[in-house]
Amino acid sequence: MAEALTRYLIRIEYDGTGLVGWQRQDNGPSVQQFLEEAAEKLTGQPTAIQGSGRTDSGVHALGQAAHLDVPAHLDKRAVMRGLNAWLRSDQIAVLSAEQVGDEFNARFDAIERRYLYRILDRPVPSAINRHRLWHHKVPLDETAMHQAAQHLVGRHDFTSFRATQCQANSPVRTVDALTVSREGDEIHIIAIARSFLHHQIRNFAGSLSLVGRGKWTESDLKAALEACDRSAAGQTAPAHGLYLTDILYPEQK
Amino acid sequence: MAEALTRYLIRIEYDGTGLVGWQRQDNGPSVQQFLEEAAEKLTGQPTAIQGSGRTDSGVHALGQAAHLDVPAHLDKRAVMRGLNAWLRSDQIAVLSAEQVGDEFNARFDAIERRYLYRILDRPVPSAINRHRLWHHKVPLDETAMHQAAQHLVGRHDFTSFRATQCQANSPVRTVDALTVSREGDEIHIIAIARSFLHHQIRNFAGSLSLVGRGKWTESDLKAALEACDRSAAGQTAPAHGLYLTDILYPEQK
Repeated sequence: MAEALTRYLIRIEYDGTGLVGWQRQDNGPSVQQFLEEAAEKLTGQPTAIQGSGRTDSGVHALGQAAHLDVPAHLDKRAVMRGLNAWLRSDQIAVLSAEQVGDEFNARFDAIERRYLYRILDRPVPSAINRHRLWHHKVPLDETAMHQAAQHLVGRHDFTSFRATQCQANSPVRTVDALTVSREGDEIHIIAIARSFLHHQIRNFAGSLSLVGRGKWTESDLKAALEACDRSAAGQTAPAHGLYLTDILYPEQK
Repeated sequence: MAEALTRYLIRIEYDGTGLVGWQRQDNGPSVQQFLEEAAEKLTGQPTAIQGSGRTDSGVHALGQAAHLDVPAHLDKRAVMRGLNAWLRSDQIAVLSAEQVGDEFNARFDAIERRYLYRILDRPVPSAINRHRLWHHKVPLDETAMHQAAQHLVGRHDFTSFRATQCQANSPVRTVDALTVSREGDEIHIIAIARSFLHHQIRNFAGSLSLVGRGKWTESDLKAALEACDRSAAGQTAPAHGLYLTDILYPEQK
């Protein structure tokens, strides 16, 4: 008889550079594939890893969450250490493992997703962080950006900020918080919601940058939202400025 | 008759990963080589670039300084933009250019050099910053490290913390400040002096880590200094945790 399985919630950091994103794809290496290969080595059997959601190619994570089932003799230390030991990419690290109930689902049980978008606001591109943030040559007004962003908070039809290929049934989402602040020569956009549409935060960042450089007013951003038309909003900001920072589950609230 | 030349002080950021360091070498690409090639494109003639000092292979810079002479019709904006436009590596960025007198020398006129050494102090290596800091699995006591570091401040014979291949005439240097502090799960060591010996800060970091993990007391560090023997001190910490952050010249003091 097969050994009983225990379900674990793991937290994952990754550098998305050169990866096709979270989800397995035919066209290149994914975080899920690396993790599932490590899990198979650890458990000795094919092991599915279910993430809290996808991230695009090039997007980073400081705290992606996922669940997997492992033979019950492995404790949380063995799961964390074993996955890291078997991972064939140093772009991925398992930060923690925590036992959860058999019904726990990293995708469906998530009650809050948190993202950070980093913009470098100076004349010269970054050498050190060139794959870690979006470079903007033109000075940005973070106060105007923050004020305009408040029109995007709350429950709205976000068709204007949704990728045309987005597969969600509804374009309606509730954004719990959207803040813009300056940290030295960086602009940080923090976005919090139960769930987001495809490209939603990168599209927020693209439109907010228009406000920041004075091309759009607060009212222009509001009008773009109300247009319910993707072509009414600004560009999709590049993937490499985006970080999935945290996923919250009920017991953490 | 050739056009008159104007001397410029430039500030440079670089990611040292995969480079042989600041100085031109036969065995791989250097920051100096990339900059001199860009300068030749900009000025139309071979142009030497003199740095404030060398950095080892893998060491990063947020504010390296150097000087070069360019035809007088180029203003500071043209120098900064032109060098960046011609640079064939996105690991290097020229942050600023400032006109200086014909006698200015980036190496000999420097009155203060500032470095940062970053240690990641957590069980799991960093995925995002794996080429940007030294990973320490074992918890470090930054208070003990800071206290012990104060024995290294002042004028001393630093033979114990000097690379055996160091070419300086004297092992005596004056360390103006050496501080150790915690920033979340990182330990930051900041070192300030007019000049340092080869590997001096990486050797400080290696020995201070012994204090941080409780293997050495403050007195052990003091004894290592007084031994004037490289083998009495700890390991050389890896290059990729070290950042040259700033070079000061008299007019800035």
